Amino acid sequence: MKGKLYGIGVGPGDPELLTLKAKRILEAADVVAVPVKEEGEKSTALEIIRPVVSLEHKELLEVVFRMAKDKEERKRCREAAGKQLTDVLDQGKNVAMITLGDVAVYSTYMYVNQYAAERGYETEIIPGIPSFCSGAAAAGLPLMEGNESLVIVPSVKAGKALEDAIAGFDNVVVMKAGNSIGKIGELLDKYGRYRECATVLSCVGMKDEYIGPLDSDREYSYFTTVMIKREKR
Amino acid sequence: MKGKLYGIGVGPGDPELLTLKAKRILEAADVVAVPVKEEGEKSTALEIIRPVVSLEHKELLEVVFRMAKDKEERKRCREAAGKQLTDVLDQGKNVAMITLGDVAVYSTYMYVNQYAAERGYETEIIPGIPSFCSGAAAAGLPLMEGNESLVIVPSVKAGKALEDAIAGFDNVVVMKAGNSIGKIGELLDKYGRYRECATVLSCVGMKDEYIGPLDSDREYSYFTTVMIKREKR
Repeated sequence: MKGKLYGIGVGPGDPELLTLKAKRILEAADVVAVPVKEEGEKSTALEIIRPVVSLEHKELLEVVFRMAKDKEERKRCREAAGKQLTDVLDQGKNVAMITLGDVAVYSTYMYVNQYAAERGYETEIIPGIPSFCSGAAAAGLPLMEGNESLVIVPSVKAGKALEDAIAGFDNVVVMKAGNSIGKIGELLDKYGRYRECATVLSCVGMKDEYIGPLDSDREYSYFTTVMIKREKR
Repeated sequence: MKGKLYGIGVGPGDPELLTLKAKRILEAADVVAVPVKEEGEKSTALEIIRPVVSLEHKELLEVVFRMAKDKEERKRCREAAGKQLTDVLDQGKNVAMITLGDVAVYSTYMYVNQYAAERGYETEIIPGIPSFCSGAAAAGLPLMEGNESLVIVPSVKAGKALEDAIAGFDNVVVMKAGNSIGKIGELLDKYGRYRECATVLSCVGMKDEYIGPLDSDREYSYFTTVMIKREKR
């Protein structure tokens, strides 16, 4: 009997935002797989589950996904990760791989899910709370109402998509926006949208939390999201 | 001492997709508020929490949000709901209002949250798993990878946003798409996108579940979502 592979979204940071299903499957799994960018790196996803999941006597398996610039090297690295995980499944062990936020939102788990599924292994994905939902909750703002649409766009290297979104859509969430606050302000001006319709969410739930208006004079961390609404609140 | 108002996202349908926090707050609340469109209507959100939240000796409060066509009537109805809830808060009771999916995604809770917050009551929003995340998990597909963007658009009355999304963005999720399968197929053809890049998710987790390609000859329910990717899978 081969083991089963689970991809588990652990949510955006608050351990209590784990789902009941994520907790149950993690506690029942033989192995918890922890994705890292470098060997020995601290894992935020692992820190999130520690207070709420019993990990005693649990085998932890580090899986390296290097953020290499070279596409072929990234691909090789993902295949090595897939092989590492299916080798454990071949021993009959169930493996649950944790991932920040939701599994379908910018997660590397999807590559190993495909690798394992294509080779006939059973896989299951457990969704998690994405950071834009917890950010909206913290700001007390809806992502969308009525018949509105929403665009989620990363600011990095996404010039055209970011501009099209601000030009034409009701609600826009800009992720990884720390270095683009000035640019976002300029695009709002260019398309006649009020700067007061934008809310910056930085380090939500952490010690440097900032939830407030666009302020080009502040410095923002990488974990900064900007929510843009059609109307002023 | 006035009570506190909570808005709780209960997720898309599977009771185990409730978060640990939602369960804790619902079990501690004095009153669980249940939004309905008509008095006495069955609540899906209430059915979702029953198997996992202990509701014994818990006061259930029905709150009516009529889907009136008239904007002023909808507004009056929301204000009445806000008044109904703050009256309970005035008795010193904590109230947790449940809502399907995530609280920031097309939820009426946001109106009463604003009503209560503006009047000085303490409020807190607990995010839930939105249906597009659980749909992507069920289909085994990422919503976005790398530097991709995502547009979420309701098909109803959203002709231009739907067309702009299909014309210009990597990933598109069309919600409430049951009556628009034919239209979506035409738009894919018009903008040179492959029909094979679209996956229909209908009644996920229910008895009439369908996860598969666009098929204009099938009938689809209101709870149908279409995921469109840039590339064929």
